[in-house]
Amino acid sequence: MNQDYIQPDNWSIIEEGFDAERVKSSESLFSIGNGAMGQRANFEEKYTGETFQGSYIAGIYYPDKTKVGWWKNGYPKYFAKVLNAPNWIGIDIEINGEQFDLNSCTEIKNFRRELNMKQGVYRRSFEATLQNGTQILVNVNRFLSLDLDEVGVINYEITPLNKDAKIIYKPYIDAGVTNEDANWEEKFWEPLDVNHNNNEAFVTARTFKTHFIATTFMQNSILLNDKNLNLFPSNVESDKEKVQFTYEVAVAKGEKSSIQKLAGYTVSLNHENTQTGAENAIKAALAKGYNQLLQDQIAAWAKIWEMSDITIDGDVKAQQGIRFNIFQLNQTYLGKDSRLNIGPKGFTGEKYGGSTYWDTEAYCIPFYMATKDQQVARNLLTYRYNQLDKAIENAKDNLGFTNGAALYPMVTMNGEECHNEWEITHEEIHRNGAIAFAIFNYHRYTGDYSYIPEKGLEVLIGIARFWHQRASFSTNKNQYMILGVTGPNEYENNVNNNFYTNYIAKWCIDYTHEQIQKVSLEYPQDHKRIIEKVKLSDAELQEWLKVSGNMYFPFSEEHDVYLQQDGFLDKDLVQVKDLDKSQRPINQKWSWDRVLRSPYIKQADTLQGFYFFEDHFTKEQLEKHFNFYEPFTVHESSLSPCVHSIQAAKLDKMDMAYTFYLRTSRLDLDDYNKEVEEGCHITSMAGTWMSIVEGFGGMRVKNDTLHFEPKIPKEWKGYSFKINFRNQILKVSVNQNDTQFSLEGDKEISVVVNGNEVLVEPNSLVTV
Amino acid sequence: MNQDYIQPDNWSIIEEGFDAERVKSSESLFSIGNGAMGQRANFEEKYTGETFQGSYIAGIYYPDKTKVGWWKNGYPKYFAKVLNAPNWIGIDIEINGEQFDLNSCTEIKNFRRELNMKQGVYRRSFEATLQNGTQILVNVNRFLSLDLDEVGVINYEITPLNKDAKIIYKPYIDAGVTNEDANWEEKFWEPLDVNHNNNEAFVTARTFKTHFIATTFMQNSILLNDKNLNLFPSNVESDKEKVQFTYEVAVAKGEKSSIQKLAGYTVSLNHENTQTGAENAIKAALAKGYNQLLQDQIAAWAKIWEMSDITIDGDVKAQQGIRFNIFQLNQTYLGKDSRLNIGPKGFTGEKYGGSTYWDTEAYCIPFYMATKDQQVARNLLTYRYNQLDKAIENAKDNLGFTNGAALYPMVTMNGEECHNEWEITHEEIHRNGAIAFAIFNYHRYTGDYSYIPEKGLEVLIGIARFWHQRASFSTNKNQYMILGVTGPNEYENNVNNNFYTNYIAKWCIDYTHEQIQKVSLEYPQDHKRIIEKVKLSDAELQEWLKVSGNMYFPFSEEHDVYLQQDGFLDKDLVQVKDLDKSQRPINQKWSWDRVLRSPYIKQADTLQGFYFFEDHFTKEQLEKHFNFYEPFTVHESSLSPCVHSIQAAKLDKMDMAYTFYLRTSRLDLDDYNKEVEEGCHITSMAGTWMSIVEGFGGMRVKNDTLHFEPKIPKEWKGYSFKINFRNQILKVSVNQNDTQFSLEGDKEISVVVNGNEVLVEPNSLVTV
Repeated sequence: MNQDYIQPDNWSIIEEGFDAERVKSSESLFSIGNGAMGQRANFEEKYTGETFQGSYIAGIYYPDKTKVGWWKNGYPKYFAKVLNAPNWIGIDIEINGEQFDLNSCTEIKNFRRELNMKQGVYRRSFEATLQNGTQILVNVNRFLSLDLDEVGVINYEITPLNKDAKIIYKPYIDAGVTNEDANWEEKFWEPLDVNHNNNEAFVTARTFKTHFIATTFMQNSILLNDKNLNLFPSNVESDKEKVQFTYEVAVAKGEKSSIQKLAGYTVSLNHENTQTGAENAIKAALAKGYNQLLQDQIAAWAKIWEMSDITIDGDVKAQQGIRFNIFQLNQTYLGKDSRLNIGPKGFTGEKYGGSTYWDTEAYCIPFYMATKDQQVARNLLTYRYNQLDKAIENAKDNLGFTNGAALYPMVTMNGEECHNEWEITHEEIHRNGAIAFAIFNYHRYTGDYSYIPEKGLEVLIGIARFWHQRASFSTNKNQYMILGVTGPNEYENNVNNNFYTNYIAKWCIDYTHEQIQKVSLEYPQDHKRIIEKVKLSDAELQEWLKVSGNMYFPFSEEHDVYLQQDGFLDKDLVQVKDLDKSQRPINQKWSWDRVLRSPYIKQADTLQGFYFFEDHFTKEQLEKHFNFYEPFTVHESSLSPCVHSIQAAKLDKMDMAYTFYLRTSRLDLDDYNKEVEEGCHITSMAGTWMSIVEGFGGMRVKNDTLHFEPKIPKEWKGYSFKINFRNQILKVSVNQNDTQFSLEGDKEISVVVNGNEVLVEPNSLVTV
Repeated sequence: MNQDYIQPDNWSIIEEGFDAERVKSSESLFSIGNGAMGQRANFEEKYTGETFQGSYIAGIYYPDKTKVGWWKNGYPKYFAKVLNAPNWIGIDIEINGEQFDLNSCTEIKNFRRELNMKQGVYRRSFEATLQNGTQILVNVNRFLSLDLDEVGVINYEITPLNKDAKIIYKPYIDAGVTNEDANWEEKFWEPLDVNHNNNEAFVTARTFKTHFIATTFMQNSILLNDKNLNLFPSNVESDKEKVQFTYEVAVAKGEKSSIQKLAGYTVSLNHENTQTGAENAIKAALAKGYNQLLQDQIAAWAKIWEMSDITIDGDVKAQQGIRFNIFQLNQTYLGKDSRLNIGPKGFTGEKYGGSTYWDTEAYCIPFYMATKDQQVARNLLTYRYNQLDKAIENAKDNLGFTNGAALYPMVTMNGEECHNEWEITHEEIHRNGAIAFAIFNYHRYTGDYSYIPEKGLEVLIGIARFWHQRASFSTNKNQYMILGVTGPNEYENNVNNNFYTNYIAKWCIDYTHEQIQKVSLEYPQDHKRIIEKVKLSDAELQEWLKVSGNMYFPFSEEHDVYLQQDGFLDKDLVQVKDLDKSQRPINQKWSWDRVLRSPYIKQADTLQGFYFFEDHFTKEQLEKHFNFYEPFTVHESSLSPCVHSIQAAKLDKMDMAYTFYLRTSRLDLDDYNKEVEEGCHITSMAGTWMSIVEGFGGMRVKNDTLHFEPKIPKEWKGYSFKINFRNQILKVSVNQNDTQFSLEGDKEISVVVNGNEVLVEPNSLVTV
């Protein structure tokens, strides 16, 4: 953890001072994205220090041949990797004959990075002295346009400070890139075509195996004192995968020279002809010009913030944290394209591969439901519907299930499983539950039932079939059990009767059964279509209900709590507070067997179940379980603190709730897990949002009505958030004394605040 | 399984007819070895069909960089691979201008392989018609000399049958070899030097990383009608890693031409200068000449058989099976060199890597104790003593143990762990128990206590410390437990309280405690030396005893059996007989999660404990446990049927005992598991020996006395075996009516037969 790294600021992420050791971490934290592409905060100019290059295009992936030590039946053949895409940012720079490189400058002063989240612009500035003695002032602005989402914009300004300078700009685009994370050190891109025309250049390359085509393009303008010199390249170098232009300018001491580079990708997912697409993208960008592109960018982000901002008054670090989280979520996924999803590292790193985990359903959907049009959440559900066939195939071909049972992958790009650890891939099956839960949650929140007869019910049936087959009958206990699983707490592998898994399995079957009944009554045609398609008989349904009606849950009479899994109490139950600090984080300090036999919990597991199914338990039960499990939880998963924050707030443990809030919201900014250089934890950022709205705000939807139990940490003066509830925008502002509600919309709504009904009318403030 | 592949024969393994599909399997089955080196039955001449080349040198290995999908703390950096050594057998042959290759002949008749186990000679003969119409008769003899154990001998005879032939022999040696099993497709050998002189050639190469140096050598003679032509090569080709000679002979139709190739390895393990060593090896071999070498080979094997043969009368397949097993064990390890051990594939394949598993202590030591001088078993124990420091290091550095706790590796070459699956490497810790048990077993059998004060006690203390630390206290059950292990049954991973593991852990502590007391009284100086070295206090000892005295064992009151592990009864207990045959073998048909949650047992586990600690349980208890566990056992480990055979014999279930005997003894010959092409299962062959001697013969040592409870399968007329018991040779012959004992030695011994004491005097027959 490093609390002094990022400067506190309400709207910006700021780093001051150049530290080569922090370059890779900052490349993650200052990443930019626009939902369609993303870019780590790599330098444009050559940098010979440690760096982790990353440019990413949404939906473009490479199936890297699986690498394992010992093959197990059922392992998938490949792991879908997030792909480092061709370099569009590169600008080599020569100043008075010396290649400019921050790693070889004799002095760097006033180095500053700022990611202005309000504007969606990344800025870098510094003064540097080259080995040849030339001092320069550099200012760089970079952003990925939200409006023209194939276009990235760079404005790179150099002012020589102590002498005149001959500056050579050598902007390039280059498909000769590699992944840090490549199993077999292969290249993932095959160059197809390179061409250029005046100030424009194009490199077209195709991914091996998946055959996605991307044209990387650039257009460059050279300015002096903000005036376009209308220069053409004095030289062009190109090979099969790269084009580089040369522009020379003589700049007098104190004058400002700049290069504006408009660049980006057009891909075969969206274009018949990516070259033509790229030409059009340049045209559109040039038509606006740099200044207009920047103004549009600021306006587009203002629109996003208008709906999704959360304000926190009196606590800059908390404010900065939540805005960073909301900013990153919007950079990663804007919900426009139902082929896309929310990768755990978003566009900030390669780690984990794949784009879709249960994180989407368990953590991200509530955020997108409440801050976007409901179509966005529906798109995320549809993504899984479109992959149902592959989930059935996965269960059948890899794992031996039958009769249309579906197991969604642990990690996927295209619906096929691509993770390969048996204890995860084959046993962390609870993921199926979250996918069903998201359907329930979508209906609960939006009131839109139509998704279920149209698409959701088929998904639910596949999932219910899976649970029915996966459970086995114990003649010993005379109940159904689910043996050999890994629960959300991945610090236990191959355990029997994980409470969370058993509970969500039972719930899935019961919920699916209810939906079949409901669709049968209310959407008889859909019911007929679906039942015929999936060949579901009453007899089969009765078999399902035998399982859900007689499911075993491990329980301790002594502690009056459900046990995380069979045998949990047999462990050496030393609490985290009594564990020597030198042993933390245990996943870095201990061998895996020691982690597994310890009582330590990586992330909310039983408590995750209490979060999803809150209404099934009393507050007293929650408190007992929280008090039992929290002391063993090490929160070494990014997905853990948010759930504990919500539960702690509900239990009026506000100090804990606040601590967990800071941990989830500033996980990356303060680099709690010493790994931010690999990328940011995007999906857990939606958990941060939940910890304010559902945790402190106490927001729930029950019987089509919003409920709140607002609380506020003592450290804050006030906080506010907006939610889109059924196409009206409710703003909630909480301070130490009261809560205010206001509504943008056209019809009054009733909300329940601390158990009391409150009427909120459009455009008027209600204080409770 | 393929019962018709190998022809039944009392003394030979015979294949008749050429089948390209079977070449790789036969290469395994017809492998030869002499304890110092080994050779798969690859053809000398070029073969363009499917083949798996394998030449192996004992003690030479390569640490192949670990390849895993997902790294876990505590994984070792490398996996020690059995190394395919330079080719010494190769002889390219041209006949009338055509390269001779069985894969391109137009006809192959009377193809026959014979591994004559009595003589230790591998023979191959056939008639082949080349594409150019030349018909030839080929006879090849090959053996690895037991006396000169650096020398292999090939006599390759060709008789042209239908026309005169110009035959060109091109013998070569070649260090440019690769492993089938290489994680990163790297070469393991670096060529150092190549030279030749007259009919001799030498290629010296060094293994990368481990820097073992091997000189591969050859000396060739060309004969016509058995008369040496004293030819020199007409041409020599060589490059940095290979030398190839050319000899041309004109052979008239019906005449017999031959090449005798004396070749092999000298290695830096045994020679300061391997080149000089190789020259001397050739000299020694030439001094004898081919015929004498052959006669010596037959005599040397006769001596081995004299002691270790088991005869079975009336059942050729059973006879062939046991001799194949005894033959392979002797080919693999002769006990001369305490640096060596018994790899699971011996010299028959690369699979598994490493040379030392718990197989050595649990299965192999009884065979070597009873058929060799006791020094051989002592060497095997000493091997572990010499690696104690590394076992302590392994426990400490990889797994976080302290205070001299030792965990021996699951797989090793040099004492360092080199396997990398957490569920095996980190959790299959029962291996430590077998290493302690072997010390007990050695003393029990040989009566030689001196090993314990000299070396064994230090090993025992390291192991006892491990178990003491590995157990954890369950306040829930108020007992000590061992959580998160994999037992001998590897179809369960990360289970709690595996009965076998808990039992042997408790036993190790108690046995070590007893030995400390005994050494203290009887070897006070050793006691002082050791206690000072390991810094063992009485207080620590008392802590150990708390664990061993209060160990938890899972038990079912209902079934009156110890449970293999916690929760075993919760499984869906469908017996193997009720499992659809199409699902077997389950490790090839099922994904790993399905295997794990099934009740199916890969190999004897609880019953392995009943085998080791037979005296701790009644026969009634054994029967209950056998009847409970056998129906769930799939015996997909080669190490399983032997133990079940022994237990079945003890329980008078002779039909089962016989079936299991055939399965263990003919596992490879009949290719039960469809994998013999990867190599033979060497270590389980010692289990086959046990299933006759301890199973049918009922041999046990109790209180320094041999006990027998002879039984005989109804299919057999009789069987006999010899054992070296404390430097006297007892021969036991069992038939359907009685058992005969005779003794080679100088003092009478008492044996107990079916509970009655019988006196056996030297050189006289006792019939019981």
